Amino acid sequence: MTRLSRGRFITIEGGEGAGKSTNAEVVRSVLERYGFGVLATREPGGTPLAEEIRSVLLGPRDEAVDPMAETMLIFAARAQHVARVIEPALRAGRWVLCERFTDSTFAYQAGGRGVAAEAVAKLAELAHPGLWPDLTLYLDAAPDAAMTRISTRSLDRFERERRDFFDRVREAYAVRARERPQIVRIDANRDLASVQREIVRAVEGFLSVHGKA
Amino acid sequence: MTRLSRGRFITIEGGEGAGKSTNAEVVRSVLERYGFGVLATREPGGTPLAEEIRSVLLGPRDEAVDPMAETMLIFAARAQHVARVIEPALRAGRWVLCERFTDSTFAYQAGGRGVAAEAVAKLAELAHPGLWPDLTLYLDAAPDAAMTRISTRSLDRFERERRDFFDRVREAYAVRARERPQIVRIDANRDLASVQREIVRAVEGFLSVHGKA
Repeated sequence: MTRLSRGRFITIEGGEGAGKSTNAEVVRSVLERYGFGVLATREPGGTPLAEEIRSVLLGPRDEAVDPMAETMLIFAARAQHVARVIEPALRAGRWVLCERFTDSTFAYQAGGRGVAAEAVAKLAELAHPGLWPDLTLYLDAAPDAAMTRISTRSLDRFERERRDFFDRVREAYAVRARERPQIVRIDANRDLASVQREIVRAVEGFLSVHGKA
Repeated sequence: MTRLSRGRFITIEGGEGAGKSTNAEVVRSVLERYGFGVLATREPGGTPLAEEIRSVLLGPRDEAVDPMAETMLIFAARAQHVARVIEPALRAGRWVLCERFTDSTFAYQAGGRGVAAEAVAKLAELAHPGLWPDLTLYLDAAPDAAMTRISTRSLDRFERERRDFFDRVREAYAVRARERPQIVRIDANRDLASVQREIVRAVEGFLSVHGKA
């Protein structure tokens, strides 16, 4: 009997309109071409309970939302997603590809909202002890270009924020990308074909080191 | 101009069917008789967002809920409740009377679900830094008697738990009551008139020490 090796955990990060969903498809197709079983998911959400929390989080509302309450809601959804979906898949040898994870919380709630980064780190340790992405593709796009791309959608509670919020989010992502070697920054301001070529290169580079069973 | 003194924070704790709502009315009437402005509220809930979280928490569901996800949901609602309702009222000099607060989380999520008490303490420090009840009335009722009292209601996700869950909750409340001098245990197995006399006595005892402006 062969012992199943644990899958790898890959996340895709970036601001609104940076192209996370489109490029997640690129990552998935590279992984599948190399023979890996992939579970693609996204946050906030990924289980029925976590999707309910997502609706509570994203719906526009009159009530001002306390930044720590928002942060804890996100981690509640994440704890459920990790316990019920991500960890079981990794243990079963599948690779998990997730749009947004805790780096988003460092960017949006610490960077954007001003929650202490140490508080985010403590919550992360409680919500997903010992689990961190093996590879993070960070799609870095200037807020202006990104906001143009999403301007035709109906906007959620985050997308309605002002320009300086998104500048703080981007700066926090930049700091985080410098601190963590697992994060690969992709310049997402270029044409889609160039972005996708760089993503394929990053994933193949990762596979050449970490893609063995 | 007189400087407004901060209000006091009183909580009512206990298992299902222990009589928290009925006895909260008794506490409120004593406080009002002594001339204090009272804000009565309850958890989980107390703001529109926190009430939405309450629905997510209490609704029966097929999906198994991760204990840490449940705990973080509760603290998300609590952070919002404290920031938007409890702290503003206390600062405005009102007394806040709240059914359930963090002692419930030590009892249900640590005692009942097995979440580490240290994790609950960390989350409490993030959700309501520096805020603890000045007085807690803990209505201690044997689970059997309490379950009989609620048997006519339609049961929420907690009320559907088994007997051993409620025994662990009660034991955790007992431990917490021994550790924290602010918690006054009231024997709620007796007739309502006796319970109410003891509550009035406990509140008046508190007022004789802490009731000055």
